[in-house]
Amino acid sequence: MAVYTDLSDEELDLLLARYDLGAPLAFKGIAEGVENSNFLLETEAGHFILTVYEKRVRKEDLPFFLGLMRWLADHDYPCATPMPGLDGGLIQEVRGKPAAIVSFLPGLSVRRPSARHCREAGEGLARLHLAAEGFPMARTNDLGQTAWAPLFAGLHEAAEALKPGLSATIAADLDRLAAAWPQGLPTGIVHADYFPDNVFFQGERFAATIDFYFACVDALAYDIAVALNAWCFEADGSFNITSARALVAGYETHRALSSAERAALPVLAHGAAMRFFLTRLHDWGATPAGALVKPKDPLEYERKLAVHRSAPDLVLFGDQA
Amino acid sequence: MAVYTDLSDEELDLLLARYDLGAPLAFKGIAEGVENSNFLLETEAGHFILTVYEKRVRKEDLPFFLGLMRWLADHDYPCATPMPGLDGGLIQEVRGKPAAIVSFLPGLSVRRPSARHCREAGEGLARLHLAAEGFPMARTNDLGQTAWAPLFAGLHEAAEALKPGLSATIAADLDRLAAAWPQGLPTGIVHADYFPDNVFFQGERFAATIDFYFACVDALAYDIAVALNAWCFEADGSFNITSARALVAGYETHRALSSAERAALPVLAHGAAMRFFLTRLHDWGATPAGALVKPKDPLEYERKLAVHRSAPDLVLFGDQA
Repeated sequence: MAVYTDLSDEELDLLLARYDLGAPLAFKGIAEGVENSNFLLETEAGHFILTVYEKRVRKEDLPFFLGLMRWLADHDYPCATPMPGLDGGLIQEVRGKPAAIVSFLPGLSVRRPSARHCREAGEGLARLHLAAEGFPMARTNDLGQTAWAPLFAGLHEAAEALKPGLSATIAADLDRLAAAWPQGLPTGIVHADYFPDNVFFQGERFAATIDFYFACVDALAYDIAVALNAWCFEADGSFNITSARALVAGYETHRALSSAERAALPVLAHGAAMRFFLTRLHDWGATPAGALVKPKDPLEYERKLAVHRSAPDLVLFGDQA
Repeated sequence: MAVYTDLSDEELDLLLARYDLGAPLAFKGIAEGVENSNFLLETEAGHFILTVYEKRVRKEDLPFFLGLMRWLADHDYPCATPMPGLDGGLIQEVRGKPAAIVSFLPGLSVRRPSARHCREAGEGLARLHLAAEGFPMARTNDLGQTAWAPLFAGLHEAAEALKPGLSATIAADLDRLAAAWPQGLPTGIVHADYFPDNVFFQGERFAATIDFYFACVDALAYDIAVALNAWCFEADGSFNITSARALVAGYETHRALSSAERAALPVLAHGAAMRFFLTRLHDWGATPAGALVKPKDPLEYERKLAVHRSAPDLVLFGDQA
């Protein structure tokens, strides 16, 4: 965690006085997420997660994130439910920082998803897209395709330092993505960070989705593209077509893809790999040497970019079947 | 946490296969302790803490620590109960490191203990000393009085860097402590790290003690001396006699101090402050710049040392009453 708020018992008491959750019974900081400080909180009313939002989450985005979680939970989607304070607000304040208390979800994330997990994850993603329909707020994807070139403008040296010649390769990728980026696909609320560590399973069954702090409005198929990158690559860098097929098949049990969405998957997957490559490259350079929490390796996504660049139809496994 | 083991779902499954605790339902790293990696683990059998022991805990000491916790729990002392594996062993292995699963304890530690908390803490400490009677294993206090001079031998420069002239002051303190260190006091199992963050309360009542990884055999009154330092100083550096009186009174509701023990409290408290000053000074220098987890400030204990040095009878509040 780049920043971590450590709350005193008095601060916790002051915060809980603004809720109807009874007295605290247990309280422990948990190592979950890198953007915020999270605590396991047990009160007389049950088990909860308390999140204190640190500077990487923009305060003005919180009503969207918390409102979305509440909406999804109210529409039977398994995600943490924000608890309202006595004033009805989902966002309270502790030590001058925004904070929220959400229900605790049982479940475990998987480190190396099987094809079975991918199928379940696909189902969970489609259910999210459907449950979010009608949510009345919107948020632009500030890490969407149009943001990549400006983001890369400050990272040419970092790319070269990572791998000589990489800067020109990325610049060419960005041109190609800008020219080919699909328009007019069905849009809606996307999770935009649907990685295995944000999905809980109970046994082999999808159980819940967490961490909606990148959620925004974008092409629904872009969420699938993020997930194909996050769930369907093997540790050796190869793309697992069986897993990808399972993920999309799972998705389509709840929401069928249009032919335009399916045709767009290669470029969307290439773009999704670019988005995570660029933010990892940025964080890589911005993390001080000796810091405890290592930033995620941008080379993992550089390798995924190379796969999408050289074999763009690989994710069109449906056409190869 | 200086070291943190992050377990995969496969590693967790392999570990749990060696226990009779059912399938995992939830698993989260928790920010508790700096010596080990700790996880909240929910299984079909209940809530547990999984601890993976990192290099600062000596593997050969683990049978003492875990055996003591089991003994205390079996003797109705509220502390985490180690769960035996299917082979009966309290210590299993995960990713080549020793690990233990203990019961989850509800309760909250207090950041700024009141006199009432101190009284309860004193009761909890005496109950620990009594419950440990008869425990058949022993462990030398490797941070006891005879260890301080050797430990300080490598820290003269660090002391001077902290505060010019401090090296000579500490050396004089060590001579004084060596000459005055009490012998022949009642000994037994001591916690040796009985700080507020290692004691849980439910409301204002003592609930449980955790973190027995400094426990050893030493003078029982030394544990009180550690606690007087840890619980009875105000944030402004002043010693709170009301809190100290409450702590000892709470202790004596379960175990009366002998006159020799009471008379030894000033030098024991001075010595306990020295022990924590020296280890904090050591850790201060050993932590790389830029590390996320800041080591604890040795100056806090330098100030406590100064109080014990200049007003050694301050903790003899009983005689001032």
